Amino acid sequence: MISKRMQKSLEEAISIRDIFEEGKKLAAIYGKENIFDFSIGNPSVEPPAIVNDTMKEILDTQAPLALHGYPSNVGHPEVRQCVADYLNGKYAASYGVENICMTSGAACAIALLCNTLLDAGDEVVTFAPYFWEYKSYVETLYGKLVPALCNQETLQPDETTFRAAFSEKTRIVLINTPNNPTGAVYTEESIKMVANVMREMEEKYGHPIYLISDEPYRKLSYGIEIPFIPDYYDDTIIVYSYSKTLSIPGERIGYAALSPKMADVNEVFAGLTASMRYMGYVNAPSLQQKMLLKCVDAAVDVSVYEKNRNLLYDSLTQIGYECIRPDGAFYLFMKALEEDDWEFCQRAKKERILMAPGKAFYGPGWVRISYCVPYQIVKDSIPAFKRLYDSYQ
Amino acid sequence: MISKRMQKSLEEAISIRDIFEEGKKLAAIYGKENIFDFSIGNPSVEPPAIVNDTMKEILDTQAPLALHGYPSNVGHPEVRQCVADYLNGKYAASYGVENICMTSGAACAIALLCNTLLDAGDEVVTFAPYFWEYKSYVETLYGKLVPALCNQETLQPDETTFRAAFSEKTRIVLINTPNNPTGAVYTEESIKMVANVMREMEEKYGHPIYLISDEPYRKLSYGIEIPFIPDYYDDTIIVYSYSKTLSIPGERIGYAALSPKMADVNEVFAGLTASMRYMGYVNAPSLQQKMLLKCVDAAVDVSVYEKNRNLLYDSLTQIGYECIRPDGAFYLFMKALEEDDWEFCQRAKKERILMAPGKAFYGPGWVRISYCVPYQIVKDSIPAFKRLYDSYQ
Repeated sequence: MISKRMQKSLEEAISIRDIFEEGKKLAAIYGKENIFDFSIGNPSVEPPAIVNDTMKEILDTQAPLALHGYPSNVGHPEVRQCVADYLNGKYAASYGVENICMTSGAACAIALLCNTLLDAGDEVVTFAPYFWEYKSYVETLYGKLVPALCNQETLQPDETTFRAAFSEKTRIVLINTPNNPTGAVYTEESIKMVANVMREMEEKYGHPIYLISDEPYRKLSYGIEIPFIPDYYDDTIIVYSYSKTLSIPGERIGYAALSPKMADVNEVFAGLTASMRYMGYVNAPSLQQKMLLKCVDAAVDVSVYEKNRNLLYDSLTQIGYECIRPDGAFYLFMKALEEDDWEFCQRAKKERILMAPGKAFYGPGWVRISYCVPYQIVKDSIPAFKRLYDSYQ
Repeated sequence: MISKRMQKSLEEAISIRDIFEEGKKLAAIYGKENIFDFSIGNPSVEPPAIVNDTMKEILDTQAPLALHGYPSNVGHPEVRQCVADYLNGKYAASYGVENICMTSGAACAIALLCNTLLDAGDEVVTFAPYFWEYKSYVETLYGKLVPALCNQETLQPDETTFRAAFSEKTRIVLINTPNNPTGAVYTEESIKMVANVMREMEEKYGHPIYLISDEPYRKLSYGIEIPFIPDYYDDTIIVYSYSKTLSIPGERIGYAALSPKMADVNEVFAGLTASMRYMGYVNAPSLQQKMLLKCVDAAVDVSVYEKNRNLLYDSLTQIGYECIRPDGAFYLFMKALEEDDWEFCQRAKKERILMAPGKAFYGPGWVRISYCVPYQIVKDSIPAFKRLYDSYQ
């Protein structure tokens, strides 16, 4: 007998799990290469060679007991320094080792920050559509996620819905740019609006409101500058993952970077440290931490994703689909051809196309196409997308 | 500004953090080798060579994208099968792949299970003294930890306090044998008592009460048989970590094994799967999972710890200290020489001996000595323990 809240959550989640299950079934029937599986965000570009080379070098040269022993909860100091140096060099920031907490990916960092900052019933504002697990991270710690709907033409933050989302219980605003599920990169204008409204709300409610910037896709952008959020708002915490940058999502390594300018920075860091223990993490995997000493500025070949993006966007719009041109990440958000995006996804399966319905992201009427797949799959899928489109005419 | 509950928790935790900080200061003044640091449970025996050899072989032979990609939330199926086979072979059990969830260590597994099984205010019973983080795992998920004091002569579970700890809100009993902090191994008689009382309470309250058996020290026992808990109680979940068995606590790898005989096993497994996502874990580190395919039955040289245990126990009792002879783990529980165990630890520092006060483990009047240190440190510490003892006569 599981808890009532878990029972409720599992019932709500069934629709999403169904996509993956049906995908597996289809692959079993038709063969994996004959399914256009755009349903999940699993990187498709090889990790840079330096990743494995570094791991092997560490295993060959470092004393195993120390290498695999407990680091501090917040990580190896030299690794934290290395991350601080990287950020300072790239963004002219002034992070110190005391501002960096190594985490088991960005999801871990968000969960830890929810545990650090939220009492029961406290609120987290995020822009919708949003990555579906955001709700779970917040609700697991008894908080409440409050979505602010983006402008439905541009998928940029909208000032009116954003303002309306605040209350005296708001402790966190959680943003994600480049965005999952939309592929949108927030413009500098959007970031300035977010920062201005947040400063006003801090003033109004008389307490800090932290901006958590979830940035696993920062290095996956296509010819566009991504504003460095702490330059616009002091109370900013960057949460980062190497999952996509290095194509190592199974290894769970990332960090939280607390702006040295933010309110109560030491107190929040202490809470983060304690949360590493309280939530059972203890520390981010030691070998993966040490790997970063050589790989902190490495990255996968992003042009592979860009090539997919170009072919898919151009082809789909040419067919007649309405899409937002994604500037980053590896997702394309497309309008469904009927009101019910779930039904649209069901119909697409007849063409062996698997997509995630927008409903799952609080973005009803849309679908998410994850184009982190081999180029050939994108190419082969175009006639199927054409047939799907024609079936609605 | 952090949450009120985190603020409260950090204030309560200060005393424990102080030990570690003072230890570092002492080491800086006198040199690490001149400090008898028995304060923390960091393994001191080299990992078996097969651990690093296997990791290197995997890195050399497996396709990086698949190796470091996302496995299922619950882990690679072949690794889960390997763990099931190991348990079935060793204990004549009948685990299937569907009963094993790979986790980022045992702490992770306990936290996930609390999230799966507890609604706010639900209760978890554990035997005191207990590992201090147990309280945090439970309270982080808004549960309540209810301690049942062990028999103070034997440090075995006590039936009277155990019975008194139950209420209609009890969902979990959490046990740890071999035990941190006491080093006690629960006897078969103790386990039978626990199982009988729990069956009675399940009957009385009309719902399953799950026994979580936290077993990171199972392979660290000295000539004593450790009962296999699922043989005594159907609703048992083993949570295991390779941190101590393979001396790799920094890498965070372990599992939860749900007895095929337990109530609502599939529902609990689904909750565990969802909790991997909801708490931000996503999956246990992929490389470390695959390492287990060759290392599932490897273990460190336990005789090193046993040698420390023998010298320390014999010497301390000869001096006149009152100790419980530890049958497993690498902890020795010793009576403080004054009522206030914190003050006793402070006084021991004058002899450069660092120990953890029993208060921190809900075991006031005792101290925990972690003997996972070089043999020479144990040897050199004996005269210091003698001087400490004499100072009280």
